Amino acid sequence: MKSISIKTHSQFCMINITSQIQNIVYESGIADGIVRVFVPHTTAAVTINEGADPAVVKDIIKELDKIVLLRDNYLHMEGNSAAHIKSTLVGASEMVMIENGSLVLGTWQAIFFCEFDGPRQRKIFIKVIEG
Amino acid sequence: MKSISIKTHSQFCMINITSQIQNIVYESGIADGIVRVFVPHTTAAVTINEGADPAVVKDIIKELDKIVLLRDNYLHMEGNSAAHIKSTLVGASEMVMIENGSLVLGTWQAIFFCEFDGPRQRKIFIKVIEG
Amino acid sequence: MKSISIKTHSQFCMINITSQIQNIVYESGIADGIVRVFVPHTTAAVTINEGADPAVVKDIIKELDKIVLLRDNYLHMEGNSAAHIKSTLVGASEMVMIENGSLVLGTWQAIFFCEFDGPRQRKIFIKVIEG
Repeated sequence: MKSISIKTHSQFCMINITSQIQNIVYESGIADGIVRVFVPHTTAAVTINEGADPAVVKDIIKELDKIVLLRDNYLHMEGNSAAHIKSTLVGASEMVMIENGSLVLGTWQAIFFCEFDGPRQRKIFIKVIEG
Repeated sequence: MKSISIKTHSQFCMINITSQIQNIVYESGIADGIVRVFVPHTTAAVTINEGADPAVVKDIIKELDKIVLLRDNYLHMEGNSAAHIKSTLVGASEMVMIENGSLVLGTWQAIFFCEFDGPRQRKIFIKVIEG
Repeated sequence: MKSISIKTHSQFCMINITSQIQNIVYESGIADGIVRVFVPHTTAAVTINEGADPAVVKDIIKELDKIVLLRDNYLHMEGNSAAHIKSTLVGASEMVMIENGSLVLGTWQAIFFCEFDGPRQRKIFIKVIEG
């Protein structure tokens, strides 16, 4: 298992981690298999979406913030319940197939770490599995 | 890794791909393991839900369209930001366990390709892993 | 493949199943690998979120119930379309990495079975994979 450390700089952001994950796959020496990405936080998530136009992630962040209200008489006293709910909706893990040592992603796909309660120091766990 | 090609015929639809995935599992000859389904698109997704009553997928499609507004002053100029957001909410991959060569699904479960920005030609990647 | 049986006692609830999954990992004797959790129901789900403050799951349940309307002229006659939609948004499966026989979870993370149409008798399938 490998780990990536990330420092987020705003309350909500999505950070493209595709090249870091591709590097870990290269270093593993595994040509065919699956890479698993796991976020060990309850107010963050990981998703796959468009990496070409940065407007897409801005739209995702803004609309998620409309869907899950930031303040809504939540019981959790830390004030970050919206971030917990987004974390459950987007999810803590992703998997991508590997062929010939490369991530099998569509033309527009990139892997994003999603920060919903930053800025914070965050970690991402990665495991490359042969097969 | 195997691939399925799908032609979608409307803007929003959910297509039951369970039997196609079951066939790929049969052809793999793998009796026990896991099958992984991955959608290499950023305006589509894959989910598991009820395959018996076609009203269920109609309700899912209609309600998702209420939750994620189709037009909302999005920055992404292609006009399909809602599809990108639904893709992140529903997710690009699923996994199903395999026992005795068969998908281990609940009585009502089926695997659906979700089109959020059709009609389009789409692909689905499938990997069967022993274990 | 192992199975857990759960009896839910209300319409909406989230039940912490972390220790049951950790026990299945111990019993498997597998020190390094991945555990896969799968819910074979279309009106339930599995998620990873905060296990420390019980207010967090209450907030998640309440806000999901706002995001997906319980009654909305749904076509599905059983009256549980909202539960089906939540199931697709939260997802039917999770995976957690294993190191030295233990689940690799963040400080605040726990694995929850999500009931969206209870009370019911439910099952959860678990598969521990070495690697």
